[in-house]
Amino acid sequence: MNITLEHLQYVLRLADTALILGQRNAEWCGHGPILEEDIALSNMSLDLIGQARLLYTHAASLEQQLTGKTRTEDDYAYFRAEREFANYTLAELPHYGPLSATAQAEKDYAVTIVRNFLYSTLMAHVWTALTQSTDTQLAAIASKSIKETSYHVHHASEWLIRFGDGTEESHRRSQAALDYLMPYTREFFSTDAVEEAIAAAGIGPLSADLEAAWLDDVRATLDQATLTLPEPVKHVTTGKHGEHSEHMGFVLAEMQSLARQHPGATW
Amino acid sequence: MNITLEHLQYVLRLADTALILGQRNAEWCGHGPILEEDIALSNMSLDLIGQARLLYTHAASLEQQLTGKTRTEDDYAYFRAEREFANYTLAELPHYGPLSATAQAEKDYAVTIVRNFLYSTLMAHVWTALTQSTDTQLAAIASKSIKETSYHVHHASEWLIRFGDGTEESHRRSQAALDYLMPYTREFFSTDAVEEAIAAAGIGPLSADLEAAWLDDVRATLDQATLTLPEPVKHVTTGKHGEHSEHMGFVLAEMQSLARQHPGATW
Repeated sequence: MNITLEHLQYVLRLADTALILGQRNAEWCGHGPILEEDIALSNMSLDLIGQARLLYTHAASLEQQLTGKTRTEDDYAYFRAEREFANYTLAELPHYGPLSATAQAEKDYAVTIVRNFLYSTLMAHVWTALTQSTDTQLAAIASKSIKETSYHVHHASEWLIRFGDGTEESHRRSQAALDYLMPYTREFFSTDAVEEAIAAAGIGPLSADLEAAWLDDVRATLDQATLTLPEPVKHVTTGKHGEHSEHMGFVLAEMQSLARQHPGATW
Repeated sequence: MNITLEHLQYVLRLADTALILGQRNAEWCGHGPILEEDIALSNMSLDLIGQARLLYTHAASLEQQLTGKTRTEDDYAYFRAEREFANYTLAELPHYGPLSATAQAEKDYAVTIVRNFLYSTLMAHVWTALTQSTDTQLAAIASKSIKETSYHVHHASEWLIRFGDGTEESHRRSQAALDYLMPYTREFFSTDAVEEAIAAAGIGPLSADLEAAWLDDVRATLDQATLTLPEPVKHVTTGKHGEHSEHMGFVLAEMQSLARQHPGATW
């Protein structure tokens, strides 16, 4: 297989989104409102970080073949700058949303759940497509990840239905979270040179081709949840091109500070 | 089986120690220096919180039979006061130790590992004894937990040997952590009325009877790690009697604040 830069970039996009969302969801670790839910969310966070590790290790092998440069999963996670991270902007947003009560911005579980719902529903389609990848290593990662992602979709959908079709307050909060987050999903489906190249090489899907199926799934759950799909917006966020929101720096500071204090530490 | 208050108290001690240490270790979640280790430690933290959940659910059933009062695992975790928690003091200590560099008290992985080593080595013996408990539900929890605990012992021992028998710096830090934490293990083996009652009823071991075997295990690993067992101290901490260190309030504030802001929240 002829390795291209686009191939490497595509794998890093997948890895970065999984890592950053895993990192965000880990903020609930030990702070959930219910023990059972605390554990469920932490486990899903570990699934995402586990997926990121597999993808980074694969990226390292691609990069080695492409440039001769040797990097490890930890190099990608801890020693890249903000502009080098190619996660969707959606993944880096904090858990507070438009209805957060205070300036201190208390975490809102509706935001957590709606984001997990939108992202995992996408990834169910992406991983399915990737099981057919001409990159057999990526296909293997997809086969493993799809099982985890199915559970994530199930978990988020159950909560979303419970929230949407629940109390007046829970409906209001989940609708607000949906209105807030939905515009960020435009980025899932905006095609660029990286995606065209990997689609042409049979490495992965053109995500625009997945949009209709994704939207069908989203609609089906929103209907059950008695929530309303907001009107589409034109603006497309640019996280996958390395241009991030003001929140990204804080996520990275949290995540990278310890490793950077002790670079290459073996003590 | 005739339920006694001591029986309930004993189960809560086991549960509280697992929960509080799980909570403490969750502080590393998303903040580890290595992705792989971050995930391993988070998983072990979830094991402990999972053990606590099983024990709380069992405690709830005992309490119901004893007093008619109905409580849930979340009631025990989130709605008890500090004085009602019966964890060993060791579990509530922060991750910084005597060698932490700053007043801001950076977490020290040697403290984390030494604590996990001392506690999991104890629990390997406790769970083994509890598989023979006359309380069949507790015996079942023990059978499940012992597998997790074996891995925790393995993980902590491997790191401790790597640290102790590693660089000068890693040796110094792990020895300092051991000197710092060892005195807290006195509490593991101090017998009281609760333990005498549960031992007499065949519910659990008298922990003093486990001390020699525990110390043999500890010594064997410390030898490999080229670390020195500190001289024993007289003072015995009192966490299991509800008298906690100044750190306990902070752990509980972190853990309980969200649930208490939204008591019984279903939104």
